Amino acid sequence: MEQPQQSAGPEAGKQPLRVGMVGYAFMGAAHSQGWRTAGRVFDLPRRPVLAVICGRDPSAVRAAADRHGWAATETDWRALIARDDVDLVDICTPGDSHAEIAVAALAAGKHVLCEKPLANTVEEAETMARAAEAAHTRGQLAMVGFNYRRVPATALARRMVAEGRLGTLRHVRVTYLQDWLVDREFPLTWRLRRELAGSGSLGDLGAHIVDLAQHLAGERLAGVSAITETFVRQRPLPDGPTSGLSAPSAVGTGTVTVDDAALFTGRFTSGALASFEATRFATGRKNALRLELNGERGSLAFDLERLNELWFHDATEPSTHAGFRRILVTEPDHPYLNAWWPPGHGLGYEHTFVHQVRDLVHAVAEGSRPEPSFADGLQVQRVLAAVEESAEKNSVYTPIAD
Amino acid sequence: MEQPQQSAGPEAGKQPLRVGMVGYAFMGAAHSQGWRTAGRVFDLPRRPVLAVICGRDPSAVRAAADRHGWAATETDWRALIARDDVDLVDICTPGDSHAEIAVAALAAGKHVLCEKPLANTVEEAETMARAAEAAHTRGQLAMVGFNYRRVPATALARRMVAEGRLGTLRHVRVTYLQDWLVDREFPLTWRLRRELAGSGSLGDLGAHIVDLAQHLAGERLAGVSAITETFVRQRPLPDGPTSGLSAPSAVGTGTVTVDDAALFTGRFTSGALASFEATRFATGRKNALRLELNGERGSLAFDLERLNELWFHDATEPSTHAGFRRILVTEPDHPYLNAWWPPGHGLGYEHTFVHQVRDLVHAVAEGSRPEPSFADGLQVQRVLAAVEESAEKNSVYTPIAD
Amino acid sequence: MEQPQQSAGPEAGKQPLRVGMVGYAFMGAAHSQGWRTAGRVFDLPRRPVLAVICGRDPSAVRAAADRHGWAATETDWRALIARDDVDLVDICTPGDSHAEIAVAALAAGKHVLCEKPLANTVEEAETMARAAEAAHTRGQLAMVGFNYRRVPATALARRMVAEGRLGTLRHVRVTYLQDWLVDREFPLTWRLRRELAGSGSLGDLGAHIVDLAQHLAGERLAGVSAITETFVRQRPLPDGPTSGLSAPSAVGTGTVTVDDAALFTGRFTSGALASFEATRFATGRKNALRLELNGERGSLAFDLERLNELWFHDATEPSTHAGFRRILVTEPDHPYLNAWWPPGHGLGYEHTFVHQVRDLVHAVAEGSRPEPSFADGLQVQRVLAAVEESAEKNSVYTPIAD
Amino acid sequence: MEQPQQSAGPEAGKQPLRVGMVGYAFMGAAHSQGWRTAGRVFDLPRRPVLAVICGRDPSAVRAAADRHGWAATETDWRALIARDDVDLVDICTPGDSHAEIAVAALAAGKHVLCEKPLANTVEEAETMARAAEAAHTRGQLAMVGFNYRRVPATALARRMVAEGRLGTLRHVRVTYLQDWLVDREFPLTWRLRRELAGSGSLGDLGAHIVDLAQHLAGERLAGVSAITETFVRQRPLPDGPTSGLSAPSAVGTGTVTVDDAALFTGRFTSGALASFEATRFATGRKNALRLELNGERGSLAFDLERLNELWFHDATEPSTHAGFRRILVTEPDHPYLNAWWPPGHGLGYEHTFVHQVRDLVHAVAEGSRPEPSFADGLQVQRVLAAVEESAEKNSVYTPIAD
Repeated sequence: MEQPQQSAGPEAGKQPLRVGMVGYAFMGAAHSQGWRTAGRVFDLPRRPVLAVICGRDPSAVRAAADRHGWAATETDWRALIARDDVDLVDICTPGDSHAEIAVAALAAGKHVLCEKPLANTVEEAETMARAAEAAHTRGQLAMVGFNYRRVPATALARRMVAEGRLGTLRHVRVTYLQDWLVDREFPLTWRLRRELAGSGSLGDLGAHIVDLAQHLAGERLAGVSAITETFVRQRPLPDGPTSGLSAPSAVGTGTVTVDDAALFTGRFTSGALASFEATRFATGRKNALRLELNGERGSLAFDLERLNELWFHDATEPSTHAGFRRILVTEPDHPYLNAWWPPGHGLGYEHTFVHQVRDLVHAVAEGSRPEPSFADGLQVQRVLAAVEESAEKNSVYTPIAD
Repeated sequence: MEQPQQSAGPEAGKQPLRVGMVGYAFMGAAHSQGWRTAGRVFDLPRRPVLAVICGRDPSAVRAAADRHGWAATETDWRALIARDDVDLVDICTPGDSHAEIAVAALAAGKHVLCEKPLANTVEEAETMARAAEAAHTRGQLAMVGFNYRRVPATALARRMVAEGRLGTLRHVRVTYLQDWLVDREFPLTWRLRRELAGSGSLGDLGAHIVDLAQHLAGERLAGVSAITETFVRQRPLPDGPTSGLSAPSAVGTGTVTVDDAALFTGRFTSGALASFEATRFATGRKNALRLELNGERGSLAFDLERLNELWFHDATEPSTHAGFRRILVTEPDHPYLNAWWPPGHGLGYEHTFVHQVRDLVHAVAEGSRPEPSFADGLQVQRVLAAVEESAEKNSVYTPIAD
Repeated sequence: MEQPQQSAGPEAGKQPLRVGMVGYAFMGAAHSQGWRTAGRVFDLPRRPVLAVICGRDPSAVRAAADRHGWAATETDWRALIARDDVDLVDICTPGDSHAEIAVAALAAGKHVLCEKPLANTVEEAETMARAAEAAHTRGQLAMVGFNYRRVPATALARRMVAEGRLGTLRHVRVTYLQDWLVDREFPLTWRLRRELAGSGSLGDLGAHIVDLAQHLAGERLAGVSAITETFVRQRPLPDGPTSGLSAPSAVGTGTVTVDDAALFTGRFTSGALASFEATRFATGRKNALRLELNGERGSLAFDLERLNELWFHDATEPSTHAGFRRILVTEPDHPYLNAWWPPGHGLGYEHTFVHQVRDLVHAVAEGSRPEPSFADGLQVQRVLAAVEESAEKNSVYTPIAD
Repeated sequence: MEQPQQSAGPEAGKQPLRVGMVGYAFMGAAHSQGWRTAGRVFDLPRRPVLAVICGRDPSAVRAAADRHGWAATETDWRALIARDDVDLVDICTPGDSHAEIAVAALAAGKHVLCEKPLANTVEEAETMARAAEAAHTRGQLAMVGFNYRRVPATALARRMVAEGRLGTLRHVRVTYLQDWLVDREFPLTWRLRRELAGSGSLGDLGAHIVDLAQHLAGERLAGVSAITETFVRQRPLPDGPTSGLSAPSAVGTGTVTVDDAALFTGRFTSGALASFEATRFATGRKNALRLELNGERGSLAFDLERLNELWFHDATEPSTHAGFRRILVTEPDHPYLNAWWPPGHGLGYEHTFVHQVRDLVHAVAEGSRPEPSFADGLQVQRVLAAVEESAEKNSVYTPIAD
């Protein structure tokens, strides 16, 4: 695929935004799609350039560059952030390296996009948030990749909550159900090892739903009560390199050191009640991030497995004709949709990354602070820490630290 | 509506089972439908007779007798249980009177069917369970009316779990969502007063889902961690007699002394995780008892708002063709269904009471112990008590007493 | 089940409406449930009495009387209509006998309720409609049992169309899908023999959807273009008595003389387009009467397999928040619902027969003409005849006779 | 967005496939996305190059080239097909120009991808099919863009039908419902003018469902009976350039010369019955291509508004546990899916174009004939012509010409 050499149109005249990406597995592929596509669909104020991709294995990173369309490669992330031809560092590595890379990239004067969860510990996240705050005074931006805020249906939900369509909030009910660990023979990939992943379903799935629930509610959790569980404690060791979600045949077994499932209830600052469940053992549920908000004036419901739909119950209508309505979030006046296809022609998972790029590029061009910020990411980390603390302390209600 | 006087058929030759019912509001109407219909649909070993109905207001109970087809009336439940022409006492009153009536009825030699929750306190429930145990040695039966065990779809679910189709259980997830208290002007009916109702959503809705979840799982909860909330603490006083669910115009306000919502997580004895929510503030949800069980070999899901359907995921199938299937539970080989209509001609809420009568009459005729027993009802009460205790103690994990 | 002997309440004082029913198979059971229950739930102006049931086999009809609660039996329908103690004749036999019984019953001064389809031929239906018209001048009423008009959701749909919520109608799309003939070994019951059933899926299922579609649209079909098919032409003969829907083991084979499926398109008098499909070969669909109306201002959709729900799209709303909403038709202000259970506690198939009795008893007491009338039944018959004519004539568009 | 200059990986070594695209509206954007993305996701045997884009308005085509990433522009399609640096011509114009461009492109030695419908008339389509056949002897390929064959769910459906999972087919039921013409003020865009669009909903939506139904069934329609309608015959003239689906404010009115809706029934060659509906007046339905196939052994159902799901009923299972199952078509062993995201992370509308490119590039590299061929497109055109003929002849059943 070659690109317009002779282009003299408006796109060509835009200032480039040169991206250096660290990591090239699942998230690397998704982010690449975002960087490559956003400028083809949206009118962006700057032109994203897939400048450099970084990974430790030279031939693998070379293949990833070819595959995903990155111009150059590096095998050391320090070299990447040292390059003059990189304006923004996009961190797609496992959580244990987020803090070091992000802090160094900010110190090197780069903007930073960091995959979620922001870090594996509150301490790391605090360091990152401080670094982001300091960098902001120098005009650098930092954003954490909670991409599910950018599903058109969740963005519409946020808008409707902000418009007051739910009134006083009573309940927020969220699950994120997957099932890829049900099989006891699934091997011990990095996602099942605490030293790399920080936690299990909690940091992976729970981080998403804590951020999304707070974002949609427009308020934060005050405290939580939790239980966590590791159903299968011994798993086969993978035989060779793995991604987080798949692995070759295994030799020997090792110990799972993260949670398989985490359930927690809690209270929002307004007094609304919250219920959360993150699990990799919900047989038959593949990506069931399901969310419902009940307010005095209405309710909203969403399921990521049907991501083009938002369900809305308007309680101000007469009961005779009231009911949960399925809004097909594909209309031109829905968030992000005027750039896409006609009504009813739905989007998919990867579009959240295109929208993330769109919003981030606008923020960079306008100098506005993108959301979710590292401070938002830190606060999510504090919720997750409170969940773990409560689970260790017999589920006792544990306030979220400020 | 008159009945066969000259009947000389098999029905006429059956031994009657003469029922005396105490209470005639919502549950009274539902139970009447059950007693009146069961023998018309199922081949029962004894013939239910709607003998006596009892209520304090003479003209109201007279009208109820006419409406629902009861042969005689009483205005004092003590008189009802003293009658020789009553074999079984059906208790449909609010929870505060269950214990006294049930214990007296058992002492008077009657079989007893008691609406759920069994009682308002563990102490009362213990007394009742002891009385039932003693009465059983005299050939009397006692049953508690957890009618949702007798939806064909839940009965099928139970059968499938017992057959091992789910394998080792990992998750049980249940909500019972209603919304009739969202309106702050809804008056303070007896269901909102602790001295009559015992608790709010917990005893009303929570009792149902605790029983149903344990019944379907085939095992009991080991402990729970809970939060409860009363969102609206002052409500208008009703002006005149009310049923639990409706009321005339109000004068003044009073204090709601029960919970509006109760959330709890827990562990089953096998180690499966549980999540429960009972609320009357889930705007737009009318009767959403939703249940999902995830096991190592499969999953089941059910929604009372679509009670003719059971969803089943068979994880032993190849992933290519696997998926949650909607079993329309209307086939002749489904529980209770061979007596009803052709496939696809669904049943409704009230049929659970017909099935309850069917099973109870069989138990009486065969001398077998009907389920759920008073001991089962007591155990549910202990779970509810643990929920309340945990909620009072900062959500700390609270074991269920044996 | 005995009834109040000493009753002196309002129910007892009501004038009885003594019913004589002919036939006691599937429809007989459903109608019995309707007659037995309606007065227990609704405030009826007259008191239905299950007076006499009639069938040719003495012991079978005796058993049916016992089972369903009829006071007396007859084995000759002529004897039944000759009785002084019968006010209304309810005809639940196969279609080939409807005309003779109905005309004789009307001649004998009885009110008549006749199961659908009204007759097997237009000629018979014309005779019946004329007899009904003549009888009406003598104060007798006649009604045809298109019970699906009396699902609360379809009754609500009719009300909404009449209120103008759909505006100018553009499309009416209806299917009635069953699958009980998919198995080639299913035997040749009376429903598969033209001389008894008149037609196959067309008269059985097609009659329902033609009536319902016209009723909801509030207008009639102008013409149709049709194809019909008999997929399996030879079937095993049943060995012994059968109902229409089941049969014992078979000996030999016979020829199916009715259609297995009928598809037709058409135009309503307003110019709206119509699409109909009736089949017994839609594998996996058990009772899928699915209906959608699209109008300039809104749309409605219904599925009999989820009969407590009506889906409504209000096109006058801004597209941002518009969507098909699921109205759970269980609110007190929904048709028939104030007599039943609290919101969300759904009804089933048989309730349509209870509602049919309710409306018919009101009509009798008030002297108003019940709907659907025999004239309505005749018009449906004319549509079915046009379908058959079109199917025979290479699908050519065939106007409906007036 | 720049591309790898220094790339020496496998991608760089692949032979390019240089594409020249004619047209840049809705379909142009969708096809661009396909050409740009396919090689980033799939391992393609040749490397697609977005070489030249062509449109009549120089500045508009320049802007489209910049936006969508095309290297060069032309304003005359004849110039485009004359270029040496174009291997394949992708035709995304309205139907009236398909034949001329395609025939010329084939004559010029190019491979051709042509948007559906293949042409506006059978005659044009015949010319095109002949040209494609002749070109094939010279090693050139021609394909028509029925992209809905390449939704993973429909591709899986095809595979399951081919495996015999449905057995003998009885019914094929398809609708394609949109609602963008419900508003009487929607202007007269080119899609509503016969001289440009050929037909209305029939050619636009009907062509899709005829192709898809025949493809999934694995057999062809033998004949059809049809009605068509234009509900709104006068519409405002658009004021300025329009795309087919939107337009600026209008001056004056003009006559709609195409159908708004087309309904047809028919027979497949095997005897299965078919029902089709294509309309732009189904209020509230945005892109509801709904399809159901019923066979003797099973059924399949699909809805384009939920394109990641395929519903399957396996009639060989015991009725106790049978039901329509929702297969979430996102597993690695589902068609096209091993190149995309983990299970449950759904795709969208545009991915069909990526898959189309994938399959076409493989066909070109392997010299195999891609499907659907121009002959397939011609056959669809013959079905549409039979629909129009039947509609003109009072819906008489009209065989499809061979």
